[in-house]
Amino acid sequence: MLETTIAAIGPLDESAMAAARDLQGRLTKPPGSLGALEELSVRLAGLAGSCPPPLPEPAAVAIFAGDHGVHAQGVTPWPQEVTAQMIANFLAGGAVVNAFARQAGAAVTVVDVGVATPLPVDPDAATGADDGGVTGPRLVCANVRLGTRDMTVTAALTRDEARTAVEIGIRIAGELVDAGAGILLTGDMGIGNTTPSAALVAALTGAEPAEVTGRGTGVDDETYRRKVGVVRTALDRHRPDPADPLGVLAAVGGLEHAALAGLILGAAARRVPVLLDGVIAASAALVAAALTPDAVGAMVAGHRSAEPGATVALRHLGLDPLLDLGLRLGEGTGALLALPVVTGAVRVLHEVATFDSAGVSEK
Amino acid sequence: MLETTIAAIGPLDESAMAAARDLQGRLTKPPGSLGALEELSVRLAGLAGSCPPPLPEPAAVAIFAGDHGVHAQGVTPWPQEVTAQMIANFLAGGAVVNAFARQAGAAVTVVDVGVATPLPVDPDAATGADDGGVTGPRLVCANVRLGTRDMTVTAALTRDEARTAVEIGIRIAGELVDAGAGILLTGDMGIGNTTPSAALVAALTGAEPAEVTGRGTGVDDETYRRKVGVVRTALDRHRPDPADPLGVLAAVGGLEHAALAGLILGAAARRVPVLLDGVIAASAALVAAALTPDAVGAMVAGHRSAEPGATVALRHLGLDPLLDLGLRLGEGTGALLALPVVTGAVRVLHEVATFDSAGVSEK
Repeated sequence: MLETTIAAIGPLDESAMAAARDLQGRLTKPPGSLGALEELSVRLAGLAGSCPPPLPEPAAVAIFAGDHGVHAQGVTPWPQEVTAQMIANFLAGGAVVNAFARQAGAAVTVVDVGVATPLPVDPDAATGADDGGVTGPRLVCANVRLGTRDMTVTAALTRDEARTAVEIGIRIAGELVDAGAGILLTGDMGIGNTTPSAALVAALTGAEPAEVTGRGTGVDDETYRRKVGVVRTALDRHRPDPADPLGVLAAVGGLEHAALAGLILGAAARRVPVLLDGVIAASAALVAAALTPDAVGAMVAGHRSAEPGATVALRHLGLDPLLDLGLRLGEGTGALLALPVVTGAVRVLHEVATFDSAGVSEK
Repeated sequence: MLETTIAAIGPLDESAMAAARDLQGRLTKPPGSLGALEELSVRLAGLAGSCPPPLPEPAAVAIFAGDHGVHAQGVTPWPQEVTAQMIANFLAGGAVVNAFARQAGAAVTVVDVGVATPLPVDPDAATGADDGGVTGPRLVCANVRLGTRDMTVTAALTRDEARTAVEIGIRIAGELVDAGAGILLTGDMGIGNTTPSAALVAALTGAEPAEVTGRGTGVDDETYRRKVGVVRTALDRHRPDPADPLGVLAAVGGLEHAALAGLILGAAARRVPVLLDGVIAASAALVAAALTPDAVGAMVAGHRSAEPGATVALRHLGLDPLLDLGLRLGEGTGALLALPVVTGAVRVLHEVATFDSAGVSEK
């Protein structure tokens, strides 16, 4: 499934992009006055292969959840059970991602791809939450293993486990697009997951551990120094080869990172845009791009996370984030806040009058 | 009316702000992880005097339109008739502001406060436009004069004209709030209006003309140099006193700037937030703040316009813009794109579970 997905991913359609650029120049506004939205609309036309591209709606956010063996190294003050507790919170509609999803009219799918502790939820009851008219949060149980291994001791995953998680992400992307989603948003939950994110970014961009490691949920100086050391130790131990993205994932990744890489590939193969949230998504995007560079054409960077690794990863991918609000929550919250900007960029191509049609003089 | 409005504007409510800070710390997310949204929610609680503050909905954008005598100095390549033509476009629902307002569910009110050329619209037909279920664009005819005078030759407005336009803005704010608006968004239309904006920013912040003058709709080098010279000439001629904001408006302002200052004051007096668009709004916000510094408490900066004067003005006001997308269109477009961020910031206080209520462990 991974190979056929990669084979289905191609470059942006140049003629649709040219048509979008031409249309932007004829709409009733000074040329270029919509700044970043204009180039975004052009890229989305190229992805869809049509001008205008379809409005990116409805939106679906997929939250992949996993735990991390490296939690044992004391990289975060939060207990590991919080991953499972937050899944219950997502399914009850009480997290920030739920509030933002209700506002944006986005459906929420939570995927247990590697949670270590028992989920304090009844999966059958999961779809009953009141979600303001939007499809209630849905839980997909696809646990590959009960958390990764500690990457400072051994590889976090086997190559097969990494591939299985990637293919779960591809499958979820396909299901969401089949159900009508016009855009996919990345979400994540996993106590400790900024540590493997930093390791992935360092491994795939060549950056130094200290340059890409951040304070995650807000760790103190001592924990921060330990975290940088943990990333360095893992990289020194495995020396992952950036030309072998599955090998990098297996060595220092997380199951949610692997699944997110799959979600991105699945979206790209279906030529549906995928709106990236924070550093977890950005590091997964590096994996997807390393598997096939054309996957970048489907990516839209939602925001610049406070995590430094996100900035390094986005620069490597050549993506400019839409928002810069100092967010560091994850869950998909930053992607959801950016969604109206993406929709607005496309809407302009659908709805705005031209100078000709509106009888407005040009300069 | 101006004096009673100013007298009604007071400081933010410290106890509501303290309650919002406390609540932010108990919600199921790492403290501070929502970045700029957290402090925004605290300010809006202070403005409303309650925690949580009401959701800022429905939204109403008020587009004040005016022309400028300084157009005769060749500060823009666009003909003056475009101001009136764009009003027709707004009322027909064909402009970018209409597309974004439909998306955001915001009502659009267009106010002719000083257009120079005849409006090519039948005011009675104005409310008939199909606006996607939202109240159709509405035209208010409140023309104070047919464009300002050329500020390089004489004062742009008399003091009475400036005051009349400010009071129109106050009246519109009151009407929109009475009709139920939970947030007001600034909009503007006026060919040439970045030139008086630059003059206002220079006069009220002490900045140099070259520092605050931008390329507006995208003027060439020769026009840009002329524009800077025009701003300098006007300031040298009038030497407006920043301690006399109405005098500054009269000397180098525009009728839409005056009305926007009034809209801001009217919103502040009603303790309803006002979301600022670009440089026209930012320069008007300086006028409002000069009249009464507490007006800043009601202001939310929507975005960082590509116009340098906007950045100088926002810095002077102590406001950080929410978006930075290289927008330079005006109309209210940047404010509309920022609206979901504002709504999201408040929604968090309404809808997100606490650690206690959700049974999530703390660090």
